[in-house]
Amino acid sequence: MLASRGVRVALGERSYEVVIAPDFVGLGARLRALSRSGRVVVGSDTTVATLWLDALRSELEASGFELHSVVIPPGEEGKDREAWWRLVDGFVRARGDRRTPFVALGGGVVGDLVGFAAASVLRGVPFVQVPTTLLAMVDSSVGGKTGFNHELGKNLIGAFYQPDLVWAPLAALGTLPVRERSAGLGEVLKTAWIADAAFVDWLEAEAVGLRAGERGALAEAVARCVRIKAEVVAQDERESGRRAILNAGHTVGHGVEAAAGYGVVLHGEAVAIGLLHEALWAAREGLDRGPALVARLRRLLGSLGLPCTVDELGVAHLSRTAVLAAMELDKKASSDMLTLPVCRAEGSCHLAQLPLHRLAELISELS
Amino acid sequence: MLASRGVRVALGERSYEVVIAPDFVGLGARLRALSRSGRVVVGSDTTVATLWLDALRSELEASGFELHSVVIPPGEEGKDREAWWRLVDGFVRARGDRRTPFVALGGGVVGDLVGFAAASVLRGVPFVQVPTTLLAMVDSSVGGKTGFNHELGKNLIGAFYQPDLVWAPLAALGTLPVRERSAGLGEVLKTAWIADAAFVDWLEAEAVGLRAGERGALAEAVARCVRIKAEVVAQDERESGRRAILNAGHTVGHGVEAAAGYGVVLHGEAVAIGLLHEALWAAREGLDRGPALVARLRRLLGSLGLPCTVDELGVAHLSRTAVLAAMELDKKASSDMLTLPVCRAEGSCHLAQLPLHRLAELISELS
Repeated sequence: MLASRGVRVALGERSYEVVIAPDFVGLGARLRALSRSGRVVVGSDTTVATLWLDALRSELEASGFELHSVVIPPGEEGKDREAWWRLVDGFVRARGDRRTPFVALGGGVVGDLVGFAAASVLRGVPFVQVPTTLLAMVDSSVGGKTGFNHELGKNLIGAFYQPDLVWAPLAALGTLPVRERSAGLGEVLKTAWIADAAFVDWLEAEAVGLRAGERGALAEAVARCVRIKAEVVAQDERESGRRAILNAGHTVGHGVEAAAGYGVVLHGEAVAIGLLHEALWAAREGLDRGPALVARLRRLLGSLGLPCTVDELGVAHLSRTAVLAAMELDKKASSDMLTLPVCRAEGSCHLAQLPLHRLAELISELS
Repeated sequence: MLASRGVRVALGERSYEVVIAPDFVGLGARLRALSRSGRVVVGSDTTVATLWLDALRSELEASGFELHSVVIPPGEEGKDREAWWRLVDGFVRARGDRRTPFVALGGGVVGDLVGFAAASVLRGVPFVQVPTTLLAMVDSSVGGKTGFNHELGKNLIGAFYQPDLVWAPLAALGTLPVRERSAGLGEVLKTAWIADAAFVDWLEAEAVGLRAGERGALAEAVARCVRIKAEVVAQDERESGRRAILNAGHTVGHGVEAAAGYGVVLHGEAVAIGLLHEALWAAREGLDRGPALVARLRRLLGSLGLPCTVDELGVAHLSRTAVLAAMELDKKASSDMLTLPVCRAEGSCHLAQLPLHRLAELISELS
């Protein structure tokens, strides 16, 4: 049995702890310490609710909470205004008050939607993330980015709203499809790649266990990622600078994900592909330590079960024009420059500026 | 010609200035100092846009801004999800970026809606309040409460989102209907009544000029109110305590406003009626300095052109049951206690706790 461990995200009065725990046991007591409310509202999606809502309910009822749930359809396509409103409206109709915790039980989409709902009801209520996917545990549940998609781009509507607690129940990874777990490793690799060379070495050594879903290895990977993300976010909560390194792989990644259609290429897979193609570009520009870096990245992607191209996912005919169009749409700014995270070497990332008219160069080797 | 004057709202890194100005002249330069954006998005309603959008456009274009506007229908009935979405969607389609100021040109409804839209696009963009009603100048434009109404209660959806600048153009008061100006004096009186006995004396002395819309008197009233509100908000930004004194008159006021139907009794009129009936209750309970206080309040309401009862507004048959129901609906908490601001004397307010089952006592003399 693994012990729980905690990582602190230091944001002054908005500081909070990320608890990496075997399961839900102990969450009730932590929630009780956070709020005297008699009730709690849980937002989840149909997939996750079927698997985990009963376990969460037992744990929270044992701590004296009355649990109300609002369940939305799963998937990135549903990350929209309607889903957000169902959560907001559900909280109000459950008679939640300003002390009532709003708990996100699910992956990144649920976390982002419930987070913005928690930010928006009664001018902000306590917010607790309970990520059930590897991707959400290592990335989206930490850092306070919340929101939903607009027709013109991803995550255009939303707020910075930090959770009061993140509780990552490792047991939930046991019900995750293998492909989703591998996709989560895409964000794990990105995190190591931008910030921690020793973590890259560790990933190489532990790749087999991680792919196989070995619980101890996953716990360690989550803890290392959260520590890195916590540090970056603490330095730059609102992404006015440094925090943008966390977007490594995401410029190309978002383009691939959107052009292929959400769910065809998973987010973590798209980030993996993006990381490689951004590295290929950097190598051509002479911005990194050379071809050996790209070669190592390729090997790592392979050993973690991650794709280097969309072909490997059985996606034929991904039009470069469509990817480019999606990348352009994703650039929220009217500015003509793009901020691009570039890794000189493993664990070392800086922010470069790329004129938007050179965007196509990033995907010149995309097949 | 009146000079501009500024009042600072001290909220650490969220501090900002409230400028009380003759008109729009100077706003462009202030906005330019705030943002390097090439554009600005203005949210307004049809009534105010007809009167003032051109003047604002001239001022901002002279400072090099391209102005995009999003105009919504006027009135409290329209303070809903649809109006908020029109503003959010309009900002996105105008290709606003993270530096683009979102300007609220209008009264309290426009300010609350645009404020929450500014909080919600791109996880928060610069927000500027340009209040055009007395009510908005003295109250709603300062303090960061933003949002919209839900079927189950007022302002249930929204955020605390402080503006980066408030610019109150006194000229706008010249086009305000007399009844709306008087209603605004309801919030002015409330502000004096809870916090500043000398300001109450001043209101008594200046009542004629204020009712007549004398610009110098109004400028002074706005400045005094903003100073008081700035101080209260600086002490308790998120209303965990003291800030609730600003809700004096609002418990009964919200009930009267909602039960009569929005627009039948104006918000400031409802606050005036609420202030009186809450004082009547406090007098019966022996919580204030006695009947002379209520008598003075009654005289002041009269001299400022404010009603003591809904009868005076020509509203017949306002059912006490309906007011009570609306008051209960307005209590967002599932708690069984109500926080009620009570004034012991002019300028001296404290927070009392009233069990919800005693709510009806507050309106026992309502006719």
